[in-house]
Amino acid sequence: MLSVGIVGGTGYTGAELLRLLVLHPEAALKMVTSRAEDGRSVATLFPNLRGFTDICFTAPDIDALAACDVVFFATPNGTAMKIVPELIEAGTRVIDLAADFRLRDASMWAQWYGMEHACKTILAEAVYGLPEFNRDLIRNARVVANPGCYPTAVILGFLPLIEQGLINNQHLIVDAKSGISGAGRGASVAGLQAESSENFKAYAVAGHRHLPEIHQMLSTIASHEIGLTFVPHLLPMIRGIEASLYVTITSTVDLQSLLEQRYIDEPFVDVLPAGTMPETRNVSGSNNCQIAVCRPQDGDMVVVSSVIDNLVKGAAGQAVQNMNIMFGLDERLGLNQVALLP
Amino acid sequence: MLSVGIVGGTGYTGAELLRLLVLHPEAALKMVTSRAEDGRSVATLFPNLRGFTDICFTAPDIDALAACDVVFFATPNGTAMKIVPELIEAGTRVIDLAADFRLRDASMWAQWYGMEHACKTILAEAVYGLPEFNRDLIRNARVVANPGCYPTAVILGFLPLIEQGLINNQHLIVDAKSGISGAGRGASVAGLQAESSENFKAYAVAGHRHLPEIHQMLSTIASHEIGLTFVPHLLPMIRGIEASLYVTITSTVDLQSLLEQRYIDEPFVDVLPAGTMPETRNVSGSNNCQIAVCRPQDGDMVVVSSVIDNLVKGAAGQAVQNMNIMFGLDERLGLNQVALLP
Amino acid sequence: MLSVGIVGGTGYTGAELLRLLVLHPEAALKMVTSRAEDGRSVATLFPNLRGFTDICFTAPDIDALAACDVVFFATPNGTAMKIVPELIEAGTRVIDLAADFRLRDASMWAQWYGMEHACKTILAEAVYGLPEFNRDLIRNARVVANPGCYPTAVILGFLPLIEQGLINNQHLIVDAKSGISGAGRGASVAGLQAESSENFKAYAVAGHRHLPEIHQMLSTIASHEIGLTFVPHLLPMIRGIEASLYVTITSTVDLQSLLEQRYIDEPFVDVLPAGTMPETRNVSGSNNCQIAVCRPQDGDMVVVSSVIDNLVKGAAGQAVQNMNIMFGLDERLGLNQVALLP
Amino acid sequence: MLSVGIVGGTGYTGAELLRLLVLHPEAALKMVTSRAEDGRSVATLFPNLRGFTDICFTAPDIDALAACDVVFFATPNGTAMKIVPELIEAGTRVIDLAADFRLRDASMWAQWYGMEHACKTILAEAVYGLPEFNRDLIRNARVVANPGCYPTAVILGFLPLIEQGLINNQHLIVDAKSGISGAGRGASVAGLQAESSENFKAYAVAGHRHLPEIHQMLSTIASHEIGLTFVPHLLPMIRGIEASLYVTITSTVDLQSLLEQRYIDEPFVDVLPAGTMPETRNVSGSNNCQIAVCRPQDGDMVVVSSVIDNLVKGAAGQAVQNMNIMFGLDERLGLNQVALLP
Repeated sequence: MLSVGIVGGTGYTGAELLRLLVLHPEAALKMVTSRAEDGRSVATLFPNLRGFTDICFTAPDIDALAACDVVFFATPNGTAMKIVPELIEAGTRVIDLAADFRLRDASMWAQWYGMEHACKTILAEAVYGLPEFNRDLIRNARVVANPGCYPTAVILGFLPLIEQGLINNQHLIVDAKSGISGAGRGASVAGLQAESSENFKAYAVAGHRHLPEIHQMLSTIASHEIGLTFVPHLLPMIRGIEASLYVTITSTVDLQSLLEQRYIDEPFVDVLPAGTMPETRNVSGSNNCQIAVCRPQDGDMVVVSSVIDNLVKGAAGQAVQNMNIMFGLDERLGLNQVALLP
Repeated sequence: MLSVGIVGGTGYTGAELLRLLVLHPEAALKMVTSRAEDGRSVATLFPNLRGFTDICFTAPDIDALAACDVVFFATPNGTAMKIVPELIEAGTRVIDLAADFRLRDASMWAQWYGMEHACKTILAEAVYGLPEFNRDLIRNARVVANPGCYPTAVILGFLPLIEQGLINNQHLIVDAKSGISGAGRGASVAGLQAESSENFKAYAVAGHRHLPEIHQMLSTIASHEIGLTFVPHLLPMIRGIEASLYVTITSTVDLQSLLEQRYIDEPFVDVLPAGTMPETRNVSGSNNCQIAVCRPQDGDMVVVSSVIDNLVKGAAGQAVQNMNIMFGLDERLGLNQVALLP
Repeated sequence: MLSVGIVGGTGYTGAELLRLLVLHPEAALKMVTSRAEDGRSVATLFPNLRGFTDICFTAPDIDALAACDVVFFATPNGTAMKIVPELIEAGTRVIDLAADFRLRDASMWAQWYGMEHACKTILAEAVYGLPEFNRDLIRNARVVANPGCYPTAVILGFLPLIEQGLINNQHLIVDAKSGISGAGRGASVAGLQAESSENFKAYAVAGHRHLPEIHQMLSTIASHEIGLTFVPHLLPMIRGIEASLYVTITSTVDLQSLLEQRYIDEPFVDVLPAGTMPETRNVSGSNNCQIAVCRPQDGDMVVVSSVIDNLVKGAAGQAVQNMNIMFGLDERLGLNQVALLP
Repeated sequence: MLSVGIVGGTGYTGAELLRLLVLHPEAALKMVTSRAEDGRSVATLFPNLRGFTDICFTAPDIDALAACDVVFFATPNGTAMKIVPELIEAGTRVIDLAADFRLRDASMWAQWYGMEHACKTILAEAVYGLPEFNRDLIRNARVVANPGCYPTAVILGFLPLIEQGLINNQHLIVDAKSGISGAGRGASVAGLQAESSENFKAYAVAGHRHLPEIHQMLSTIASHEIGLTFVPHLLPMIRGIEASLYVTITSTVDLQSLLEQRYIDEPFVDVLPAGTMPETRNVSGSNNCQIAVCRPQDGDMVVVSSVIDNLVKGAAGQAVQNMNIMFGLDERLGLNQVALLP
C-alpha cells in the first residue's frame, strides 16, 4: 500500500485526484494540503466524496509530506519547484501536475511562466510523464512532470506520424478546443457560466504556455526542430479536449494501420475504426485517449482528431497512471472506469 | 429626447440597459459611470455594442448626472441611496435597479441588507415600479424602485388571485428558479460554468432577500399580512426565471378568464391559453411575462407558472418601461423585441 | 457469478445498465437484446464501452433469456409484461425498469398507460423495488418493479415524515425537476438541444404518469389515502433530479435527527448536515440520494430537497442494487462510484 | 411595402425569418406555408411570436406565392428548384435559403445532394447572395442563392487575402465549428441535448456539402482553382459559428489594415482591433460577422478567426439583407439589432 500525499487539493485537478485515489486499491491517502481550507473536511468542499473519505485539508508540512511514498502537486505553477528538492532528498517521489518540470530549458521556462525557475538542477532529471513515449524512464524517475492537457492530446495524435518520418514537420497545425474546467477553479469573470456557456472563441493565439511544451516534445520525437502553429479554443462545456491536427504527408503509407500498430499495447490509447470520429463524451471521466486519422478526398493533407478528458488523461488520471508505473503496479489500477454517457 | 445616465454599467443589468437604450428612439445616452473602467469604451467591454455606441465609461460625477433627465442605478445594493437625494433635489428622476428603495420599512431593510439605510426619508415616497400594479404612481414618481427579478415573476402570478380574495393567503408557496445571470457578473467560484452548469440546487432556503420584498407587496395587494414560503433554485442556463406558485383556492371561479381579464390591457403580460405552459425561452431577450394557471385533477390546489427574462422584465426592460411611463412615452418604446428562439 | 440478460439495451437506462454491469464483479453479461441493432456490437453504439465488452446486440430470444439468472427490462412500457410470465415460469428473476409492474391496480394502470395490462396476475406479487422501504420483500421477489426516477427522489424525501405521522398528508406538494436524459434516447423535436437547453418549463401539470405511482406508495406508507400535487419541470442539463417537497407539519420534532436516524444504515441515502442543500452534480454518476430538510423562518412549513441521478438511483443503479439484494450479494457491489465533479 | 411569402416556416431558418420580418418596417408578411402545420397559428408553434403576428400556416399555393413581391424558401434542399421557375415567370423574386442554387455545376450538385437538379437553366442566372462580394449582382437578381452558414463565415475571412493574391491558395485549411441549431429542427437522436451537449466532435471530415460551395466561391475570387481542407465540428451550444482559417502567406503586407480597408464600408462585417479575438456570443441574434487576423510568432502562417450567428448572417439575416438590396431599401432595415449578451 502506497502512502500518498496531495499538495493543493482544492482545484479541479486536485478534486479529480481525490476522486481516483479514494478508490485506488493500492493507495492510502495520508494528507491533502491547503492553506486556505486548513482543517476543513475534504467532503465538505467536494460533497461527491461524502462517504468515501474522512480526510481533512491540512496546512502544508514538509516533514509529513516527506514521509509519503509519493506526493502529487496539484498546485499553481511555481509552487512545486520550491518544495520538490527537499522531498526527493528524503526519498519521496514526486508527480507534478503543474508545469514546473515540463520544459527542459530554464530560460524558456522563465520566459513563458514569468518567473525564475527555482531548482534548475532538477529540470534535467525530471521525466516528462507521457507513458506512451517515456514509460521506461518514468519507472525510475524521482520527479515526473505530468504533461499538460493540450500537449497530451496533441502529442498522442502526432506521435506515430513523426516517429515514422512521414510528414512535413515544418507546418504542423493544431486547432485545439478545451472544456472550461481547463481554466481551473479560481474565481474569475471569464469562467462564469454567463460568460463562457453558449459561446466559443479562440484565445491565446499569439502564444499559449502549452506551445513550447508541445514544441519541445514533438522536436524530441522528430530529433529536429519542428514548426508548429497552435490555436486553442474554449468550449462551452465542462470536460473534454479535442485536438484537430493538420499536416501534409510525404508518403502513401496506410495511416490507419500505422496508428493501430503503434498503440496496440497501450491500455489508454484507442485508435478508432476508419470512418469513425472521436467524441469527447466517449472519454468523459475515463483515462482514455481516442484517436482517428483520415485523408480527406485522398489528398496530401492528413487530419488527425484526438480526444481526452482534460482532467483525467490530461491531468489526474495520467498522474495516477504514472504513479502505477513508478511503483511497479498494474498501470490500469484505479483507472478502470467507463466514461459517463450520456 | 430624454438625456439618460447610467450609474454602474459593467454588470449584467447595466449591459442590458445599454442594449436597450442604444436603440431607444427617445433616449440619448449621456453617460455610463464606472470607477473601475473609467476611460474605457463601453464597446470594448461589451463587444456586442460595437457600432451602436461610442460612449466611454466615466467616473461618477454628480453634477453631470444631475444634468440628465433620468438616471438609472445598476449598482450594488447600498450605492444609490447615497446619491439619490442630491439628484432628485436637482430635479433628476431616478430608477434604481438595486434594492435600496424596495422595502418601505428601514429597519427591515437594515436587517436583510446588513447596513443602515442612508436616506430613510425617501423610502416613503419611492414607488415600487411594477407598472401592472402601480402605473399611476410611477407616472409622477421622482424615485422608482425597480422590482427584483423573482418578485416580478411571483407578484404578477399571484396578483389577480389575491386582488379577488380567492385564495388562502396564509400558505402561499413559491418554488422559483433563476438562470445564472441573476447572480451577476462578479468573479466567483459558485458562478463558474464548471460549477453551475450541469447542476441544479435550491439555495437560500432559510431566507432570500427577495422574500421580504415579495411579502411586502403581496400583503399590500391583499391588504393584510400574507404567509409565504419562498424557495429559490439555480438553473444551469443564462437567462430566465420560472416561478411555480402553489396555493389552495376557496372559490370555484374560472381562473383562466380571471387572469385574462386582469391583464387584457397589459402590453407585457401574456396569459397563455388553457392547457399551455410557459417556457423561459419564449421570453428570452424580451420584456414579456408569460403566465399559465391550472388546477390539477380539479382539486383545491391552484398552480400558476410565470416566466420572465430576469434581465429584461426582471430588471433592465422593466426599468425602461418605467422610464417610458414616467416621461409620458408609449410604454412599449424601445421594448418591441421578439424573444430569441431557439 | 450471475448470468445476466438485458432486454432493450439501446436507450439511456440500458446504456447505464451496461456501464455498471461490465464492471460488476459478480455479473456476467450474457446478452443484450435489440431488434433494431441486431448484430451490431454494443461498443459501436456506445463507444464509451470500447475495451470493456465485446458483446453484440441480438434479437430477443426467450429461451436464451430464460437461461439467465436475472433479466433486466430496459424497454418501453408494455413490453416486459408480455414476456415476464414465461421467464419467471422458467425460474428467471426479473427486474423491470419500465412501469409495467409499478401500479397494483390494473385498471388504474390501463388508464395512465393507455393499454390493457397483459399479466394482471403478476401485479399482486411484483415487489416495488425501493430497497429503503421494501428490502425484505425484494430479497425473495421473482419480479421487481424498479421505481420511476421522480418517485425515487420524492418517496425517499417524504418517507420518514409520513412514517412518523408528523405531517398534514392531504396537501403534499412536489415541485420536481429532471434533466433531459429522463426523456429517453428516442428522436424527438422537444428533446433537441436547440429546444431544451437554455430553457426551463413545467410540463404535464394536468397529470404525469409518476403521479399515481407516488400516490400509491405514499398512501401505502401512510396507511391511508394521501393528497398530492405533483408538478414536474424539465431542466436544461443531462443528468439529475431535484425534488422540492412542501408540507405543513403538525409537530415540533427535530426533523434533522429524524431523517438521519431513518437512513443511518442506508448505504445510498445521505442526509446532509443542517444548513446544507443538496446539488444534483454531487450525485451525478453515483447511486446516492442526498437529502436536506429545513423549516424556513421556523414556521409550520417543512421543505425537503432530495437529489438523485435519474439514470442511476432513479433507474439502472437502483436496478443493480435490487439485483444485489435479490441474490444475497453485498448491496453496494458494482455501485461504489464517486460522482463525477465537476 | 413589400409583400412577402415564406415557403417552409417551421424550421429554424423559417423561425428566424419570422422573427426578423414581423418587425421589418417595409415588409408585409402575406403567407407562411407548411403542409404539416396547415391552419395552425404561427405563434402557437413559436410562442415568442405571440403578440407580433396573427398569421397562420397555410398549405403551399403557387398562385398566392406568385402574388408576392418576394418569396423566401426555408425548405429542405430540392424543394425550391421545383417551384422557382413558375414564380420568376410570374415576376416574383426568390431568395432560397437552401442549397438549390448555390452550385453552378449541375452535375456537381447532383453528386453532393443525391438527386438530379430540376431546373438547371436557372443555375446560371442565380446570384450567390453574399453582399460583400456580389452586391451589384444581387440588386437585379431574380433568384438569390443565400449562402450556407459555414461558407459565409469562411469566405468573409479569406476574401481580402485571396483578392490581394497574398497567400498560398493550394493548402487552405478551415477548422470550423457550429452550434447545434445548424442541424435543423428535425427530430433526431444526434441532436438530442443528452447527445450533443457536453460533447464536441469533428464530423463529415470525408466531405461536407459546404465544401464544394466554399471551393467554388474561393476559386471564383482567386480566378483559379484553390486547394481546401474543410473540417466542421459540432459545438455544444445553440447559435454561432466560428471558423479558424490557416494559410501560409507569401508577403509581408499589414494584414490588419488590409482587412479593415476591405470591409470599411460594410455594415455587417466588423474587423476587430489587433490583439482581440472574436467570440460567437458577441454576434448572437445579430447579422454581424466579426473577424480577427494574426500571425503567431510572426511566422508565415496566418490565422483568421471569423464568427457569425449561423441563423442570422448565416441564414435568415443575410436573406433579409439580400431582400433589402434587391428592392433598393436601406441594407440594414430590420437588422438593426444588438446581440444578446450575456
